[in-house]
Amino acid sequence: MKLYFSPLACSMATRIALYEAGIDAEYVEVDPRAKRTLKDDGDYLRVNPLGLVPVLEEGDGRLLKENMAVLQRVARLEGGKLLAARGETEQAELQQWLSFISTELHKGVFSLLFDRKAAPEVKAYALSKAESRLDYLASYVEGREFLLSEFSVADAYLVTVLNWFAATPVDLGRWPALKVYLANLRQRPAVARALDEERVLYGHYLRKYGELTPQMAQVLGVS
Amino acid sequence: MKLYFSPLACSMATRIALYEAGIDAEYVEVDPRAKRTLKDDGDYLRVNPLGLVPVLEEGDGRLLKENMAVLQRVARLEGGKLLAARGETEQAELQQWLSFISTELHKGVFSLLFDRKAAPEVKAYALSKAESRLDYLASYVEGREFLLSEFSVADAYLVTVLNWFAATPVDLGRWPALKVYLANLRQRPAVARALDEERVLYGHYLRKYGELTPQMAQVLGVS
Repeated sequence: MKLYFSPLACSMATRIALYEAGIDAEYVEVDPRAKRTLKDDGDYLRVNPLGLVPVLEEGDGRLLKENMAVLQRVARLEGGKLLAARGETEQAELQQWLSFISTELHKGVFSLLFDRKAAPEVKAYALSKAESRLDYLASYVEGREFLLSEFSVADAYLVTVLNWFAATPVDLGRWPALKVYLANLRQRPAVARALDEERVLYGHYLRKYGELTPQMAQVLGVS
Repeated sequence: MKLYFSPLACSMATRIALYEAGIDAEYVEVDPRAKRTLKDDGDYLRVNPLGLVPVLEEGDGRLLKENMAVLQRVARLEGGKLLAARGETEQAELQQWLSFISTELHKGVFSLLFDRKAAPEVKAYALSKAESRLDYLASYVEGREFLLSEFSVADAYLVTVLNWFAATPVDLGRWPALKVYLANLRQRPAVARALDEERVLYGHYLRKYGELTPQMAQVLGVS
């Protein structure tokens, strides 16, 4: 099994899920700017014409695209059963949260905010959407360890996305429930390991483009 | 079962799915601007604090939010078995397409384009994203009747979203494969019925706000 990923991108959620499930995989790094695989300088647009990560390649050569589909596939794998929802109600809730994170936070806020080609008005628009989404999420997460009754791929996705706020003007500290949720999850071994590994890789990526500022190096904990 | 919907919004995909499956439901119309239910002038923010449709309410009073979750719930219902994916491969592909439609088209293009409060730069940005997404989609849909091997909730969602292009400067005629796919799907009785009913309701909605222009009335086929 191969996971095409870029450091600290939404594909990190699948890395967390695979670590949690104890499933071995080959991790193929994609330069999200050059749209090339690092190891062999391959053309990533041949893997995904949209140039997006993650893509999951299983033994049969099939390429599964789209983060929500990849996460749910891993959740259904033999070793991944613990990550999947149990029963109809939790399955529906899992899909509800994956959809919320994906559309309201990831796409609705961060895809705009992190797009180098987006105009300042687009970034301001994205920021204007963040507050109501975080209010809603915080009121749900208050007092909860996980989005469902146990750890699931929805938590893997949410911790990945909440982590991005550190690179924005939004102070997550205004939502104590989210800070607590995130701090707890960061202590899970699978989450901590994924974050540590991808932080280093992201540092290399920024350095390659001459964009590793001292502040960013400090945030990432790299030198 | 109750479906909270707004005319021609993404909730129409669930109406199509319910018609296809022959499942009876009560359809509760929500004014997307006032965030109120029409029939009883109720506060819709008590149903969904984000004010978004659809929400599915089943017998037990649970409220399921998020279009992708609602669609997949209907696909799993007794009468809805035909709309669900069969087997692991199709389940993964179903989720891949739902995710693509939801994030790349619905959220990435239309949510920005149809937001009354969005600046012109935001709308220009949204339009700039449409072309590559439609290229990608058209190359897949070419020669296919459905996204999967048979009709699924992903088609119900895609026909709903492609229909919105009529209200944008994007000429879908540039992608003949998409025009053919859409024209075929519009002939399915469930799709035709949903479109006919919601077009009329959308005409009422625009008239209420004094926004039913003669051109729009013609597009909608209402007087």
